[in-house]
Amino acid sequence: KGGKLLILPGDHIGPEVVHEALKILDIIEESTGAQFERDFDLCGGCSLDKHKDSVTEAVLKKSEEADAVFFGSAGGPEWGHSQPNPESGLLRIRLRMQIFANLRPCNFVSKSLVHRSPIKEEIIKGVDFMLIRENCGGAYYGNKIEEEDYGCDPWEYKRSEIERVARVAGALAMQHDPPLPVWSADKANVLASSRVWRRIVHEVFDKEFPKVNLRDQLADSLAMLLITKPTAFNGIIVTDNTFGDILSDESGGLTGSLGLLPSASLAGAPAAPGTEPTQGRNNAGGVRGLYEPVHGSAPDISGKGLANPAAQVLSLAMMLRYSFNMHREADVVEEAVARVLDSKEDGGLEVRTGDLGGRAGTREMSEAIQGEVRRL
Amino acid sequence: KGGKLLILPGDHIGPEVVHEALKILDIIEESTGAQFERDFDLCGGCSLDKHKDSVTEAVLKKSEEADAVFFGSAGGPEWGHSQPNPESGLLRIRLRMQIFANLRPCNFVSKSLVHRSPIKEEIIKGVDFMLIRENCGGAYYGNKIEEEDYGCDPWEYKRSEIERVARVAGALAMQHDPPLPVWSADKANVLASSRVWRRIVHEVFDKEFPKVNLRDQLADSLAMLLITKPTAFNGIIVTDNTFGDILSDESGGLTGSLGLLPSASLAGAPAAPGTEPTQGRNNAGGVRGLYEPVHGSAPDISGKGLANPAAQVLSLAMMLRYSFNMHREADVVEEAVARVLDSKEDGGLEVRTGDLGGRAGTREMSEAIQGEVRRL
Ligand SMILES: CC(C)[C@H](C(=O)O)[C@@H](O)C(=O)O
Ligand SMILES: CC(C)[C@H](C(=O)O)[C@@H](O)C(=O)O
Repeated sequence: KGGKLLILPGDHIGPEVVHEALKILDIIEESTGAQFERDFDLCGGCSLDKHKDSVTEAVLKKSEEADAVFFGSAGGPEWGHSQPNPESGLLRIRLRMQIFANLRPCNFVSKSLVHRSPIKEEIIKGVDFMLIRENCGGAYYGNKIEEEDYGCDPWEYKRSEIERVARVAGALAMQHDPPLPVWSADKANVLASSRVWRRIVHEVFDKEFPKVNLRDQLADSLAMLLITKPTAFNGIIVTDNTFGDILSDESGGLTGSLGLLPSASLAGAPAAPGTEPTQGRNNAGGVRGLYEPVHGSAPDISGKGLANPAAQVLSLAMMLRYSFNMHREADVVEEAVARVLDSKEDGGLEVRTGDLGGRAGTREMSEAIQGEVRRL
Repeated sequence: KGGKLLILPGDHIGPEVVHEALKILDIIEESTGAQFERDFDLCGGCSLDKHKDSVTEAVLKKSEEADAVFFGSAGGPEWGHSQPNPESGLLRIRLRMQIFANLRPCNFVSKSLVHRSPIKEEIIKGVDFMLIRENCGGAYYGNKIEEEDYGCDPWEYKRSEIERVARVAGALAMQHDPPLPVWSADKANVLASSRVWRRIVHEVFDKEFPKVNLRDQLADSLAMLLITKPTAFNGIIVTDNTFGDILSDESGGLTGSLGLLPSASLAGAPAAPGTEPTQGRNNAGGVRGLYEPVHGSAPDISGKGLANPAAQVLSLAMMLRYSFNMHREADVVEEAVARVLDSKEDGGLEVRTGDLGGRAGTREMSEAIQGEVRRL
């Protein structure tokens, strides 16, 4: 068990939280005998400083060869005018690894967090959907034109790009009994690429996932409904790169705990427990992927030991599940985070970082999670 | 005073609420002596039925010649597979009229509505921003490619398209003392069109609106912040067609009262009271525009007299203000709607339609508003 990790801590709080999350991995190695080869390298601002590029060819190559990439966060004001920008490193890795399916869960790791949502409890309580964003196509890639008086980004999709991400949605839906409902979000009433998207998604589901209830949902109206009726979308939402970018950040706002949101970017559909992926398989028998928290590099609190490590730890759990088929260990890590968030310290204080209204530091929060992982 | 109106009630509840809103216009004609020439025509499903097209050349021509277009809503399940779709009529009118600035206020017409928001009162209370969506360019127009296995929408902007919408934001900001802050939302870290957008918006503000505080805001992160800190954007948000489509519907969700949201689409910057517009001027000395509620045609309640007429009435207020320079009358109409929403009926029941949790019908709500307009 185990495999080959490329670790890209990135900038500012990235290295701080990655460092803590890897301590959880140590514990899992001890307790399971799994071994993870760890190769650390640069991406983002730190790579710009050293190599004058947001990511080097050597790192891109390593990212293709790793079983999984564990990513911190990239960017900061000191690279505000860099060419290329630090974020471009991540975009290039996504493309090179062909991790075309970006998965972002929207739910509450712990019930005690529901009241922290900006949304009223009776509306947001019980929300539980997975948003799948197409991550290697659409308007964010392709041949851009940037002139003095004109700019153009071709928003294009071809059949194979749509089919593969639709399959991820279908496969995830089928891992539940009964299968989860799937909403495909687009603007087929306006965009040609959306009309092609809609048609091909339906073809894939009709043929390969006939048991899944697939519905079309206009992306603009979804942006409204996610606020007014979020639980109506419990299940899976699949959408293109642009809509997914906006809607996934909106979903992050729904729960109100940016410091707790993990994400996975996968090169194929994750396999159900006991099976193997049919696309994007890595040498560990899981699916190749990159795992990162949704939050950014938070330059304002970097170096102070204040960052919440939970999103990075939950990203580790996703990595164990999808890239290494370690489903039980993934559950344990998630449960440990939930317990820490639910627990009270001796003095009646919860172990929570500042973003959650508490006074714990990165290390303290991390140690509490480690303790729970050991116990579970 | 007054001018030439093209009225396009459209489908389902469209005609019902337009009919009621026009009664308010009658009252204003009586009390001010203003005269509005009213030409009724078809757009949307009703036009498809009669002319096999979502809008005819004759109507497009009239829309160019009118001082303002008063629009209901277009579409419904019976035209679900029509080619073209009913919505395309509206898109073609937007383009023909060159109403490139879509304005959507996000605020509470009446304080008594704050508690109806899905967002917690302490977070949403006092929200007050105007979202300006570029409405004639970007990915929603241009040369689309739609093939069996491939679709493409060029997401393009040229200087003149960006300048003119930036000027609307600047002019609106300058109508306040001190000027309102402006946020320009884009994805300049990824999109070439956004980088051009950002540069040109700054050029316009540096040169023409040096007193306005202009800030850049990434569109994805804005989608999150609008939920977690909506009042932080009190002022003006200006953004492109795609981001504006999603973000404006999200903003609609924030207040939670879809039946109360009006919109204006303008061919130039509205003039401050006492001045005249420099672009898109109509024969009434205002700016050419189309006014419509944000809600759709609501086929589920059409024909039952249940639709809330308030969004259509508030769209009328925007029309009076922007297209006919009737600022006082616009204020009166808005105040009348607010009073009705705040008032209690004899029996202690508020006059509210079902969407607001009340039991009033379209006519009853409309009559209450008319009564207040008469009184004011
Ligand atoms: C940093 C940026 C390029 C990136 C994106 O838009 O894909 C980010 O916003 C994200 O959502 O992962
Ligand atoms: C109906 C549709 C074409 C339209 C748009 O996307 O512009 C609508 O969603 C809107 O926001 O006015």
